Amino acid sequence: MTPDERAALAANDAFYAAFAGRDLAAMDALWAQALAVTCIHPGWHVLVGREAVLASWRAILANPDQPRIVSGGADARQIGEAVLVVCRELVAGNPLVATNVFVREEGIWKLAHHHGGAVAGFGG
Amino acid sequence: MTPDERAALAANDAFYAAFAGRDLAAMDALWAQALAVTCIHPGWHVLVGREAVLASWRAILANPDQPRIVSGGADARQIGEAVLVVCRELVAGNPLVATNVFVREEGIWKLAHHHGGAVAGFGG
Repeated sequence: MTPDERAALAANDAFYAAFAGRDLAAMDALWAQALAVTCIHPGWHVLVGREAVLASWRAILANPDQPRIVSGGADARQIGEAVLVVCRELVAGNPLVATNVFVREEGIWKLAHHHGGAVAGFGG
Repeated sequence: MTPDERAALAANDAFYAAFAGRDLAAMDALWAQALAVTCIHPGWHVLVGREAVLASWRAILANPDQPRIVSGGADARQIGEAVLVVCRELVAGNPLVATNVFVREEGIWKLAHHHGGAVAGFGG
């Protein structure tokens, strides 16, 4: 694992900590500023741009019925200036899998894209 | 749009053409060789590595009950040496959304990661 992959995995952990802790400021700071970010919540169409993506997180983090999330099994692959992280999520006991793409801005790894989806309980 | 983004979108089109045409040889050629590829089919856990990923495609493309797929609305963003494509899929009339990550190998854009997931009919 490269140092960049390790740093992106730490950013991935910070993303789930912000999610679990309902910390909108931390969530906002985790998303890239310099490129058009995208986010696909489970079952949603793609959200494009910081405004739409952060508005969705504001609603999710403010929702008192939003179940707790934990993540694990993260694996990172550096592709040039991006790091692709695939990890598992557990939301209210339901298994999901996520694709998270990180880019470096001023030395800090930021989220460029998040795609979360449910696991139906089959497959490899 | 950069020339690399255009070239990756053409590779994205080729991916869906191979899928729709049940063309395993074309599908095989589309996946990267030099890095550990990953694939998340809708509802599945992540498949890691060329062998597991291509075995899944072999089963899908050989399945006579596999519904037809069309794709559209693809958008590409270059991040250094990777291109991130987000697009819509329609499988048997059901809407899905996909994240496809492309890398260049010997001048040709190849799939490094595919993540497809159902759209539940809500969201932005």
